[in-house]
Amino acid sequence: MKRYKVLFQPDNVIVELDAGVDLLTGTRKANIEIKCSCGGEGTCGKCLVRVVSGAITSKGHSTRDGWSVACQTHVAGDIVVEIPVSSRVAQSQVLLDAHADVMTDVPDLPSSFSFDPLCKQITLQLIPPSIGDPTSDTSRLLLALKKAVGLNFVQLELEQTRTLAETLRKNDWCVDVTYAQLGDLNYIISIDDLNANGRLWGIAVDVGTTTVVVYLVDMLSGSVIGKAGTHNKQARFGDDVISRIIYADEETDGVGVLQQAIVDTINGLIAELVDKYHIDANDIRAVVAAGNTTMAHLLFGIDPRYIRLEPYVPAASRFPIVKAREIGLEVYPQAVVYNFPAVASYVGGDIVAGTLVNGMAEETPVTLFIDIGTNGEMVLGNKEWLVSCSCSAGPAFEGAGITNGMRAMQGAIERITIDKETYEVTFSTIGGARPQGICGSGLIDALAEMRAAGIIDRAGKIQDVPTPRVRKSDNGIEFVLSRSDDADLGRDIVITEADVKNLLRAKGAVFAGIRSLLRAVNMDMNDIERIYIAGGFGSYLNIPDAVQIGLLPDIGTAKYQFIGNTSVKGAYVALTASSAISAAEKLAERITYVELSAGNLFMEEFISAMFLPHTDLSLFPSVDS
Amino acid sequence: MKRYKVLFQPDNVIVELDAGVDLLTGTRKANIEIKCSCGGEGTCGKCLVRVVSGAITSKGHSTRDGWSVACQTHVAGDIVVEIPVSSRVAQSQVLLDAHADVMTDVPDLPSSFSFDPLCKQITLQLIPPSIGDPTSDTSRLLLALKKAVGLNFVQLELEQTRTLAETLRKNDWCVDVTYAQLGDLNYIISIDDLNANGRLWGIAVDVGTTTVVVYLVDMLSGSVIGKAGTHNKQARFGDDVISRIIYADEETDGVGVLQQAIVDTINGLIAELVDKYHIDANDIRAVVAAGNTTMAHLLFGIDPRYIRLEPYVPAASRFPIVKAREIGLEVYPQAVVYNFPAVASYVGGDIVAGTLVNGMAEETPVTLFIDIGTNGEMVLGNKEWLVSCSCSAGPAFEGAGITNGMRAMQGAIERITIDKETYEVTFSTIGGARPQGICGSGLIDALAEMRAAGIIDRAGKIQDVPTPRVRKSDNGIEFVLSRSDDADLGRDIVITEADVKNLLRAKGAVFAGIRSLLRAVNMDMNDIERIYIAGGFGSYLNIPDAVQIGLLPDIGTAKYQFIGNTSVKGAYVALTASSAISAAEKLAERITYVELSAGNLFMEEFISAMFLPHTDLSLFPSVDS
Repeated sequence: MKRYKVLFQPDNVIVELDAGVDLLTGTRKANIEIKCSCGGEGTCGKCLVRVVSGAITSKGHSTRDGWSVACQTHVAGDIVVEIPVSSRVAQSQVLLDAHADVMTDVPDLPSSFSFDPLCKQITLQLIPPSIGDPTSDTSRLLLALKKAVGLNFVQLELEQTRTLAETLRKNDWCVDVTYAQLGDLNYIISIDDLNANGRLWGIAVDVGTTTVVVYLVDMLSGSVIGKAGTHNKQARFGDDVISRIIYADEETDGVGVLQQAIVDTINGLIAELVDKYHIDANDIRAVVAAGNTTMAHLLFGIDPRYIRLEPYVPAASRFPIVKAREIGLEVYPQAVVYNFPAVASYVGGDIVAGTLVNGMAEETPVTLFIDIGTNGEMVLGNKEWLVSCSCSAGPAFEGAGITNGMRAMQGAIERITIDKETYEVTFSTIGGARPQGICGSGLIDALAEMRAAGIIDRAGKIQDVPTPRVRKSDNGIEFVLSRSDDADLGRDIVITEADVKNLLRAKGAVFAGIRSLLRAVNMDMNDIERIYIAGGFGSYLNIPDAVQIGLLPDIGTAKYQFIGNTSVKGAYVALTASSAISAAEKLAERITYVELSAGNLFMEEFISAMFLPHTDLSLFPSVDS
Repeated sequence: MKRYKVLFQPDNVIVELDAGVDLLTGTRKANIEIKCSCGGEGTCGKCLVRVVSGAITSKGHSTRDGWSVACQTHVAGDIVVEIPVSSRVAQSQVLLDAHADVMTDVPDLPSSFSFDPLCKQITLQLIPPSIGDPTSDTSRLLLALKKAVGLNFVQLELEQTRTLAETLRKNDWCVDVTYAQLGDLNYIISIDDLNANGRLWGIAVDVGTTTVVVYLVDMLSGSVIGKAGTHNKQARFGDDVISRIIYADEETDGVGVLQQAIVDTINGLIAELVDKYHIDANDIRAVVAAGNTTMAHLLFGIDPRYIRLEPYVPAASRFPIVKAREIGLEVYPQAVVYNFPAVASYVGGDIVAGTLVNGMAEETPVTLFIDIGTNGEMVLGNKEWLVSCSCSAGPAFEGAGITNGMRAMQGAIERITIDKETYEVTFSTIGGARPQGICGSGLIDALAEMRAAGIIDRAGKIQDVPTPRVRKSDNGIEFVLSRSDDADLGRDIVITEADVKNLLRAKGAVFAGIRSLLRAVNMDMNDIERIYIAGGFGSYLNIPDAVQIGLLPDIGTAKYQFIGNTSVKGAYVALTASSAISAAEKLAERITYVELSAGNLFMEEFISAMFLPHTDLSLFPSVDS
């Protein structure tokens, strides 16, 4: 087969591709991260590139001045390709600086947990052996450790056994031992030279489909030393878990490639923190991760394929406790890695972590806990009962599948007001940068404002209002939010009628999920005593607007509380309060999973919720019809 | 540095050696196993080779017709070297065929144990998942297994988690699970396709310093399917544990080389059994090994150096439970490997195994259990108390350090009578072959007969008796057992006065050990109600002769019982009666170790025992003085 050279600019990277291979594959090979919401299906239009010279074949999308979508453009000769900034995945620093509140402060430990870190260090001074006391080195160490900390340790690992004799003698029988308690099992993590480090770190990780956040924790004090976050490097293989699962399933070593991508993402964040705080990665001795079920599978290299096939069964809901080296995390090789257990395929360890730390499972008020991300996952209940579900909201609120949608990054339109008479638009962007697209909170604002101004009707149809902002295009009727001379996309930022329908489906799914859960326990909206909203998206959400469009219940803003990234908070709590791990395991058992695809209940609710705000206006007393 | 070619004949193997390197190193490089009792110190004279042509430098031993000891012969040019049969380590088949009783039948399980194999297989028919029961694959399996066998399993290994989903679906949710109970921990060894094998094997190993014996056990019935034994491939690095430890300590990657040698030895035996009985090595799912403390260290690749340094502390006395792949055993990679715990540096898992299966630890009679090998290890006691010690008898009874000593192999003189008037010698050899040397039982006979005939006095000095068999040589006075025209060594088979002294030291050490143990518990010889003799050597021992020379107590032959290779028997019991493992762990704790090098007691006893039979003749009422 013929092979051609592809030069990517301005990166100046050349890769060789077989004839007919698409340019999205080329960018992956070149290690250039570009947007790809649809996973390379040719439907999202995010991977726009410009072919400067050379022969290509292109299907579907038309090309203009060489512009075309990378996933549908195939090499037919040596070519030069330019990748614009707007097609690239933005860098982590941007995300974090622009939205420092993703990194909300660590809460005090929930009252049910006290500081008792998952891994601890102790200095052991052993009595040296003598003719009268020739106990073996391993037994001497284990006996002294048992005496000092009151725990039984099953055994040393083979490698630890191999090195113990020298370590003990080199240090005159005085060593630092690091150990961990995980549920019923106790592990010896390391036996170190005395005072080799004096530091002991842990890492809490939120393994999000879109964003990955890491806390560096001082295990001696429990304080969070530093935080870092970035997009999940798996993003180039698709925006949502379904496209990742398909990639894992269909590509050669797809699971391996995705595992490497998430491990690289976490390692990158760890390296950033190691560098910033001048610590030794070898002193990181414990890692706790929380993520949805698919992310957990991929982190461990477990094939997630059955998650998307009926009856939606994950390979694992509890994950093996492994050593960092087993999955390639670049910390101390024997560091223990714990991952929060999942409830079901679509209610993962992130939700268990959130439920653990928000306290609802130990308290009396009936609480609704929602994480609106790619899926809308929610838990309803209190200390007596807990039910959960996941509604496939789709990634619309993360900007995917929306003509000018984007993640909450530098340049995303996040606030919009529309003048009800002139239909003129005022907006603000993240970081005050030139607008590049619209993020989730901006999309909710847009829907609410367009409805309030009469630009769309209750069914989401764009009305023939007297403004040039409403226009017809190749993609149907659209409303122009920002004109091309404002943007650097080379095109206007618009919301099409199709976008509105997508958003209605997303918001309808979430609301129908809430209604279905309530009906499963025979309750009404007004029985909900409080609503906790988690997730990066949650924090920027304008509650009144979200209620206006019928995304969230109309039960008064006073009942709402943003609780931030409870996934990483849960991981932090498990790192610093070791009883949290058995509590999490029990919690995962306690939460009853409601499968929405079983029966017609959800579908009926979904159809009723596809209007603005809903077919049943009595559910939204505060909303003008 | 100059390098020369060395051609070994008749093997026809060429290796390249740096100038000045010795030929013993050359044979190791050529993978030719030759005898080397002293570990290459130039003292045993066993590694005799003939330099046919080429330049050498030789120190110490004189050369005659090109004969010289390989370890003291250094290359100084391209050379051709012939290695005679007599210098080679004999092949396993010879050993086993000549002495089939090394392979004594497996006893019934001791009464305190019932058949409950260490690893078991069960067919699990899982209920397939459905929308109403979407439990994860791992939880589904673990729950079903717990229900079926009543055991909790902590977790699946990562790799098992990775492959489970496909295995379950490929087999319509019906799989064979192999699991093991080891003490408090339960392991899932494998999850296999249904009826992929239907067989389940275990391996019991006696890891002896000299000989390695393997039983192939049918784990479904408990029967021993086959047995195989061979010399330990570590023999080329020295005969006794001390020379092995020195090799491990002083050579580059010495521990690794010795580990590889013992693993190769075991793998060779397993391959032999796999081949002979047409089984699949992948169906071998459990391995139990027993060996002395040094052998156990080397099997696991743990540096044994501190075993030989005061205060004689082993790195480990309990060994980690590992998977076969971790130490390179060529069976099912996840097969569990258990090794018997040791009491001390010189009372190892082989002795614990022997004590476990001989029943003395559960019974009333005061029993002395002796394993006379390279060291004389012994346990004294009953169900209420147990004491143990090890006397450095040295490898004289295994033929090492004795001019014409050899192991109990084809051609070894094993029975001797000497006419008291003519001093003529009658002897028999193992396998009836031409005599090549004298093995342990032959040496004991020789001492007893030479003393009875007045050829040596009570102090072991050779007397001036009227026979040409007593003569002077370069090595001092010697007694000729067999003339060179009988032998194929090219020299006579003799016992020198120095050999007699060596044997007196060896037998004196064993007897002094017995006396010291008795004195430690304030008992006399006559308090011993029975004596169990274990080990390959033990089985061919002529008890009356051993008593005559003062090696064993003079308390009547009726109290003696040979109990064979209790090391491999113990390993077999642990394979087939899983409660034996916790029993062994407890037993290792129960046996009190008496360090003979502490205080003067042993040394006094040793000096008194260096005569034939002893200075205190009242201890040997049946022996003519």
